[in-house]
Amino acid sequence: MSSTWKCEEARVPPALQLLTPPITKFKIGLCQMSVTPDKERNIVHARNAIMKAAEMGAKLVLLPEMWNSPYSHESFPVYAEEIDAGSEASPSTAMLSEVARTLNITIVGGSIPERSGDKLYNTCCVFDTDGKLKARHRKRNPLHDRSQTSNYGIFLMYNTLIHLFDIDIPGEITFQESKTLTAGETPTIVDTGAHLICYPGAFNMTTGQLLWELCQRARAADNQLYVATCSPARDVASVYVAWGHSTLVGPFGEILATTEHDEAVIVSEIDYSQVELIRTNLPLQNQRRGDLYQLVDVQRLNC
Amino acid sequence: MSSTWKCEEARVPPALQLLTPPITKFKIGLCQMSVTPDKERNIVHARNAIMKAAEMGAKLVLLPEMWNSPYSHESFPVYAEEIDAGSEASPSTAMLSEVARTLNITIVGGSIPERSGDKLYNTCCVFDTDGKLKARHRKRNPLHDRSQTSNYGIFLMYNTLIHLFDIDIPGEITFQESKTLTAGETPTIVDTGAHLICYPGAFNMTTGQLLWELCQRARAADNQLYVATCSPARDVASVYVAWGHSTLVGPFGEILATTEHDEAVIVSEIDYSQVELIRTNLPLQNQRRGDLYQLVDVQRLNC
Repeated sequence: MSSTWKCEEARVPPALQLLTPPITKFKIGLCQMSVTPDKERNIVHARNAIMKAAEMGAKLVLLPEMWNSPYSHESFPVYAEEIDAGSEASPSTAMLSEVARTLNITIVGGSIPERSGDKLYNTCCVFDTDGKLKARHRKRNPLHDRSQTSNYGIFLMYNTLIHLFDIDIPGEITFQESKTLTAGETPTIVDTGAHLICYPGAFNMTTGQLLWELCQRARAADNQLYVATCSPARDVASVYVAWGHSTLVGPFGEILATTEHDEAVIVSEIDYSQVELIRTNLPLQNQRRGDLYQLVDVQRLNC
Repeated sequence: MSSTWKCEEARVPPALQLLTPPITKFKIGLCQMSVTPDKERNIVHARNAIMKAAEMGAKLVLLPEMWNSPYSHESFPVYAEEIDAGSEASPSTAMLSEVARTLNITIVGGSIPERSGDKLYNTCCVFDTDGKLKARHRKRNPLHDRSQTSNYGIFLMYNTLIHLFDIDIPGEITFQESKTLTAGETPTIVDTGAHLICYPGAFNMTTGQLLWELCQRARAADNQLYVATCSPARDVASVYVAWGHSTLVGPFGEILATTEHDEAVIVSEIDYSQVELIRTNLPLQNQRRGDLYQLVDVQRLNC
């Protein structure tokens, strides 16, 4: 039946197969930490949160967006690090590397402001169990380069690196990331056989209330995979007040674990066999209509 | 800033402009009616529900999916009507036409099983205030043919006509629409400047609980428009138990009005200026990344 509507042509180039990664069942830790103007404190604080998650059994640990810096245009250039210039120039990622190796865990390091030449990026680094930088979600090292998948499979990052966040609701919230940050060049096409989307995000009190839970549940259900989000803890005294509510969502859009808005470390189990089961039960991919629409992965097409 | 990532190229052919329709503020009525094996009763019952919505001020009225027939493979061929063969052959649409004209309202007539030659379709008819068939969402009269927009602008239909619904969760729910129904050929690309998606849907107790509210809120927030859904009322004695919970969702994904699972007619206000305001406040369309992905409207491209 499905062949009549050319479901396979709905993705150009054709969708990649869902490959089963070496590790299919593991605990993920979400570290919803408070972020202060004291960068050294933030680094120590993040390290403690990661250690706590690992003690609770987490093998993959996720940090918030902009965990080493206040979320403001004034702070980004001041707190930015040159990730490629060694541990002196990048104490935040040096800590992530060291703790990943020491604890034998994988860390999806939320994000920090990164300086590269005269540009600033909002950059997420992933460190493997050997402490090596496995992937950088920004410009030249797309996280879902197929040669760089981890033992936990391919996981995609949805954050402001792809779609910068510009908002202007008079009287409520105005913020233009595009004023100081440069957009990355990594595709977000969720059609590469991912099992998990990691989203280090700092929604605010307006979009948090309206969209935070909705967006992550929608992406999980639409793509039939896990979504893990991690926000800074809420600090009502800061200029930009984060929403909090870091969450793990299952492949039917169901909330598996979540925090409130205060500091918290939560650990919850991920089982990729659930993804494969749900894609069998409700085979959305076979019902795509390539005769009507196509989603083109421009970068992969041009490879 | 946005020009660097070619946001306009993210839609192929280019997205149509959001045109302001003649009527931008009006009340919509959702008729969550019970559906029985008695077709004549269903027709009278639907007429009464439409009249009630109109009395409450609704100018656009939405009926449920499969409102004249039980939702089962055995029933579809028995209850199917030949819509083009006159009012004798299609008493359901004849009623819709008559009541639209009499009450001077527009009706998005949920759906009924339609017979055309040796095929069955799940078909939604839209009747204008003059009682004329304005659009049929099935095969040859796509609802968002630009020559056929109504006074309420372009509204799209998301229902099983585009993506047939096949599910198999052992012990919970198994249903393959593709066993008896033929898929329509109308694109669902939500990129034609719509303000409103009407979704006559009959989710079941499994997908209803998990996905009904989530999907409609997600489509509203992702596309920054209104979503109106209408389900049959729940009847636990029927073979296929509908979820109910007909809902109007605003362009931030917020629930504006909703029913429980019993029979109900609800009326709520739609104001398209909210759509334009939100698209200005949070300009998602300017942040699209045509350099990374493209959504191709295959049919419009081939016109």
